[in-house]
Amino acid sequence: MPTTAQNLYSPTVKGFIPMIYVAWADGLLSPSEVRIIRERISAMPNLDVSEREILFNWIEPSHWPDESTFRNWMHLMKETGAEIDLNDTQSIVDLGLAMAKRSSVGDALPDLKALEDTLRDLQREFKLPPPAKFRALHAPHIELPEKPSVNEQEMQRFLDGDSYELKDRIKKILSDPLFDRTVIRDKDKYRQKVLEWLKLLAEQGYGALGYPEAYGGEGDIIRYAAVFEVLAHFDLSLAVKFGVQFGLFGGSVQHLGTKIHHDKYLRQIGDAQLLGCFAMTETGHGSNVRDLETLAIYDADTHMIDVHSPDFAAGKEYIGNAMHATIASVFAQLIVQGENQGVHAILVPLRDAQGNLLPGIRIEDNGYKMGLNGVDNGRIWFDHVKVPRENLLNRFGNITLLGRYESEIPNPSKRFFTMLGTLVAGRICVAKGALSAAKSALTIAIKYGLKRRQFGPDRGEEMLIMDYPTHQRRLFPPLARAYAANFALQDLVTRYQNRSGTDLRLIETQAAGIKAYTTWYANSTIQECREACGGKGYLWENRFADLRSDADIFATFEGDNTVLMQLVAKGLLSSFRQEFNDAGFMGAIRYLASQVSDSFLSLNPVYKRKTDVDHLLDPSFHLHAFKFRQRKLLYSLGSRMRNMFRKRITPYDVFLRTQTHMIELAEAYVELIILEQFQQKVLDLQDGPEKDIILPVYQLFALDTIEKNKAWYLEQDYLEYVKTKAIRHTIDRLCQQIRPHCDHLVNAFGLSDHLLGAEII
Amino acid sequence: MPTTAQNLYSPTVKGFIPMIYVAWADGLLSPSEVRIIRERISAMPNLDVSEREILFNWIEPSHWPDESTFRNWMHLMKETGAEIDLNDTQSIVDLGLAMAKRSSVGDALPDLKALEDTLRDLQREFKLPPPAKFRALHAPHIELPEKPSVNEQEMQRFLDGDSYELKDRIKKILSDPLFDRTVIRDKDKYRQKVLEWLKLLAEQGYGALGYPEAYGGEGDIIRYAAVFEVLAHFDLSLAVKFGVQFGLFGGSVQHLGTKIHHDKYLRQIGDAQLLGCFAMTETGHGSNVRDLETLAIYDADTHMIDVHSPDFAAGKEYIGNAMHATIASVFAQLIVQGENQGVHAILVPLRDAQGNLLPGIRIEDNGYKMGLNGVDNGRIWFDHVKVPRENLLNRFGNITLLGRYESEIPNPSKRFFTMLGTLVAGRICVAKGALSAAKSALTIAIKYGLKRRQFGPDRGEEMLIMDYPTHQRRLFPPLARAYAANFALQDLVTRYQNRSGTDLRLIETQAAGIKAYTTWYANSTIQECREACGGKGYLWENRFADLRSDADIFATFEGDNTVLMQLVAKGLLSSFRQEFNDAGFMGAIRYLASQVSDSFLSLNPVYKRKTDVDHLLDPSFHLHAFKFRQRKLLYSLGSRMRNMFRKRITPYDVFLRTQTHMIELAEAYVELIILEQFQQKVLDLQDGPEKDIILPVYQLFALDTIEKNKAWYLEQDYLEYVKTKAIRHTIDRLCQQIRPHCDHLVNAFGLSDHLLGAEII
Repeated sequence: MPTTAQNLYSPTVKGFIPMIYVAWADGLLSPSEVRIIRERISAMPNLDVSEREILFNWIEPSHWPDESTFRNWMHLMKETGAEIDLNDTQSIVDLGLAMAKRSSVGDALPDLKALEDTLRDLQREFKLPPPAKFRALHAPHIELPEKPSVNEQEMQRFLDGDSYELKDRIKKILSDPLFDRTVIRDKDKYRQKVLEWLKLLAEQGYGALGYPEAYGGEGDIIRYAAVFEVLAHFDLSLAVKFGVQFGLFGGSVQHLGTKIHHDKYLRQIGDAQLLGCFAMTETGHGSNVRDLETLAIYDADTHMIDVHSPDFAAGKEYIGNAMHATIASVFAQLIVQGENQGVHAILVPLRDAQGNLLPGIRIEDNGYKMGLNGVDNGRIWFDHVKVPRENLLNRFGNITLLGRYESEIPNPSKRFFTMLGTLVAGRICVAKGALSAAKSALTIAIKYGLKRRQFGPDRGEEMLIMDYPTHQRRLFPPLARAYAANFALQDLVTRYQNRSGTDLRLIETQAAGIKAYTTWYANSTIQECREACGGKGYLWENRFADLRSDADIFATFEGDNTVLMQLVAKGLLSSFRQEFNDAGFMGAIRYLASQVSDSFLSLNPVYKRKTDVDHLLDPSFHLHAFKFRQRKLLYSLGSRMRNMFRKRITPYDVFLRTQTHMIELAEAYVELIILEQFQQKVLDLQDGPEKDIILPVYQLFALDTIEKNKAWYLEQDYLEYVKTKAIRHTIDRLCQQIRPHCDHLVNAFGLSDHLLGAEII
Repeated sequence: MPTTAQNLYSPTVKGFIPMIYVAWADGLLSPSEVRIIRERISAMPNLDVSEREILFNWIEPSHWPDESTFRNWMHLMKETGAEIDLNDTQSIVDLGLAMAKRSSVGDALPDLKALEDTLRDLQREFKLPPPAKFRALHAPHIELPEKPSVNEQEMQRFLDGDSYELKDRIKKILSDPLFDRTVIRDKDKYRQKVLEWLKLLAEQGYGALGYPEAYGGEGDIIRYAAVFEVLAHFDLSLAVKFGVQFGLFGGSVQHLGTKIHHDKYLRQIGDAQLLGCFAMTETGHGSNVRDLETLAIYDADTHMIDVHSPDFAAGKEYIGNAMHATIASVFAQLIVQGENQGVHAILVPLRDAQGNLLPGIRIEDNGYKMGLNGVDNGRIWFDHVKVPRENLLNRFGNITLLGRYESEIPNPSKRFFTMLGTLVAGRICVAKGALSAAKSALTIAIKYGLKRRQFGPDRGEEMLIMDYPTHQRRLFPPLARAYAANFALQDLVTRYQNRSGTDLRLIETQAAGIKAYTTWYANSTIQECREACGGKGYLWENRFADLRSDADIFATFEGDNTVLMQLVAKGLLSSFRQEFNDAGFMGAIRYLASQVSDSFLSLNPVYKRKTDVDHLLDPSFHLHAFKFRQRKLLYSLGSRMRNMFRKRITPYDVFLRTQTHMIELAEAYVELIILEQFQQKVLDLQDGPEKDIILPVYQLFALDTIEKNKAWYLEQDYLEYVKTKAIRHTIDRLCQQIRPHCDHLVNAFGLSDHLLGAEII
């Protein structure tokens, strides 16, 4: 089919262009519309075979005209339209005739009468408005390419990056019959099974991946996180137990301890010979860990630390591994020479070799939970338990032989937050685990949607539910978000692995934000997928029961999401304060103000009404919109705070009054960094069928996020209705465009039936 | 305190009004602000005791100035402001001085110098903008009344209506030790327990409430639904089992059968002597029940009906009571004399007296589910099972002795949908059950929020988490929605009980919509409440685990929510078509168009920028906004459909292209009917402390719903930013206003600790 040089089309063919354009532009051509157009074209005299072929090709409903054809039509129409003064009295027929006449100069004169009759006929059939009024002439159009041959493995490599082979290996291990999937309702039996699995993995060296080579590891947190990610596909209890033992507990020894601790414990931990807990959270203090109540009082005479829970609420709670562990990293207020040095971690043995509790230790099972019943969470109290001085994990603060406290970080609060920095890897893993659960759910729901039929036109075959627009609208945006989060997390863990000291603060902020964002996303996505599978989704055998119940707590543990989002906002505010240290906070605010007004707001007048497809799908539009939102929210938050500070409102009151604003800012920031990564990844991708199907996924993520926030954009006058409406149409089209490839997109997650564990697929 | 006559204030006192107004209007006065103002006032010479007292009273942070005081300030300021030309060069000080001067005419001249100094001083302290720019002068203000003495029982009666005593009785029964709450992980044991409970309730006559008196009941579906509602607080498995036995199965016999069936079965069903299933859904057909595949072929020679599952997917699935029942109402395509008469219900015995399966019956356990594991769901296949002619539930279609089919409803499809009308009561109950679960969750989360402290100002006591604005924002709007749904359901079930034939269609539509709306609402609310309780919310002992997992399927069973919402939209479209039967569908559209433009859009120019508090809290503004949304969506949907029909697009294609639009319309409709009920209930309420605390709950529901849809309102240019912003502030204030009463509001649900079953409260 000729697509570029306009003179390749005969005048008669050109005369049809406006009619066919409009028919397509309002959506897919329906079979009855196609039938009518075909009839009229067939009935035309003096139309040669090639002309008919071109026209028939253009209205073939099985594939959309490709984008260049469409653009060419538009180009030709605009050329002619500019000459004939498009107004309400002009019809699509007039435009078509003008195009035919215009191009017949010097050509054999076409049968204008027959063309006009046919066009008028069709116009009557379709009740078309004049072209000047026709929305579609200004509205976006997106090509719906034919299904290319896609290399799913290539896509999987693209998603997995360097971890592809390792992940593949773990998947093979998990397909061993030892990793069977059965209902185990009894918590003790389920925990026993998970413990066995954990030891199997440890035996093969996967637990130690994050530790230094000297202790059996590879010092590679990227690879450690990749293992966690795969385990989370198989069983979230196993993933969490793995994370508690090797990440949290082992990580505390690795990052908060020094060589004596590493030498004594790290290899045994990696082998799962020594099982341990990360005993931080208390009943009375979850989010506010700085104010934990457990005491660790150093006695200089005996060189012993006395670990004690002063009251019931000071007991440690939800502690994973509590029923199996023989030792714990206990976080407590360290008192040396009567002075509180803030929270430190101290290794406290819990059980003897036979598994009996040691004196002074009281442990209670946390019992059944909504999910994760394969993880043994418990409560722990200490009644003046004495441990030697060496049990203090002393990387950031030490007690000398002479019984004095020393640290390179003088401020206790700052010291503690430095220690907490070691939680970053855990947060990245939690986000990855949640994403895995969401990917599993999406794969099951989309595969089911491609099998399940329900309803349909009268007397016709029932339709695949995946062909319902509402079904696409509920599953494809979260699918796009899974791709987006995938790249953001890949990038984050890589930067964490290769960090230098100065990056850490930024990585911490981003990890907190992405953890909150991804876990909320995962919970709502799994829910959506469950509902999309109807009653089948409710049966245990189809996996959603566990995915939903297990992943639920990810929104709370390793930092409550709402609290983390506030942390992100505070991080953003304080980095601005830091950057503009000379000018001070007000300087930062002034700078922000100028930024927003200069480079952003000034673009608005044209921008907010721009609805052409090139613009809507343009990565730089997306980036601009995301950045604008983040900066504007930061600026307005800063201004509000400044005003309150000027009015002498106490900092805590200021924080309270701006809390919801902070969370909005944090979300905007997380969305921005996710977008930036996704853009870069996709734009860097080599041309080919894989890029062709991932690009619309990126576009859907970008536009769906803008649409989700459209109330704000409308309020800011950044978008007008004409544009939000065009965005909505474009999202619908992108969903249609993704529909033929959605199986490739979920297959690229590389999840076997065994990993998914759902009977319905 | 003088509040009305303006001349009761001295000129000096008046001079302070703008300053104090502005200080209040930006939010609560902080303690440090109060301190500063008090100091400056104290330092003023020539101020008498009563003047000082008035001023101190006005800035007392423990209670807000009451609304009339506030209004009076505003009035005085506006009066003066109109005279002195408020502009950017004018300051709060200028306005204050003008007010003092204005009122000192004929009065003793005040010490203007001292007043001016003090005001300038304060202005410097607080960095106040000129009054013309000050948002608060136009922004809403809401009184925060002191905690009145509220009669919680009175509120409970208001919520429960006529069912108050019955509900109370059921609550007492459930507090019997027989209704203990323990973890039962094994499904068979749990099911056994639920069955025992069911029989206990039946013995006392609660199962039969909906049946006619002749069969041991009261013919009262309102009371039946009230029992269901209370059971849903205690254990959702019990509620569902109860609903399956007495509502669905018993209801099918009652509503689809005739006297012979009633005489033979109804009393035994009500006593739970005869356990039965409602066997409608099939593996292959859930939502599209019209196309069920089970066959019921009548053999005129033997007078027997042959019930048969032609293939695996034709098996009945998710059938509650399947493992306990001895009989089932089986929905199947009824073939008489070779002609398919559409879906009918036939009673098919499943087991003998010893519980053994009868020949031709195959039943499989559906196994573990996400929740509701106390309900025995199973799959049932029939292999040419023969039952006598009399087993056809023949109210809407009968087979005569001569073997001919007869029905008063000639169209098989219409006949079936008439039969489905009997599902209405079930849908109302499902909505009520979901609402109960949400109320339980809200009660637990709010009570916990009033106990749990976390974080706080430096060196101060930690704050109650219920005092965090974010916490209020996440729990109070759903609390308001629980009140709203409560009244809507109360009204709906009452109309259903007292229906005449013509109402039924409307009630059906509304039941479908409210079922979908309430169950979605319940799931998201329980989730929010779970997260609001952090780790505690994840433990089984605190109830959310069951609430969340059990209620989840309410979004799917008795009609998938997405499908139901489309049903609602279709109902709305077709009632319009009906109302304008003469003018036809186009007439209806034209009528709608004129409605929207005349009575609604024309109000807009002033309306969309109106931000004063009276307007924002005015029920007629809310009603207008809700109606506008519903009508505009109906109109635009109608127009879009008309255009598509004109273009000869097939009805099914039209339906597909407008699917998301339909769901939006349905939601708007449901919100409108809920609002109307809530408004009426609250406005009819007698003045008193109960009304004082329920009114802001109503206002919160109305404004929060408008805010949820604000993107749409902005797009339609119905609201402008200045107004959406004022709405946001008003919602924040309403949350503050509700905060002191939130315990009353949940206590009014009347849920004992035993019913709630949460350790944390």
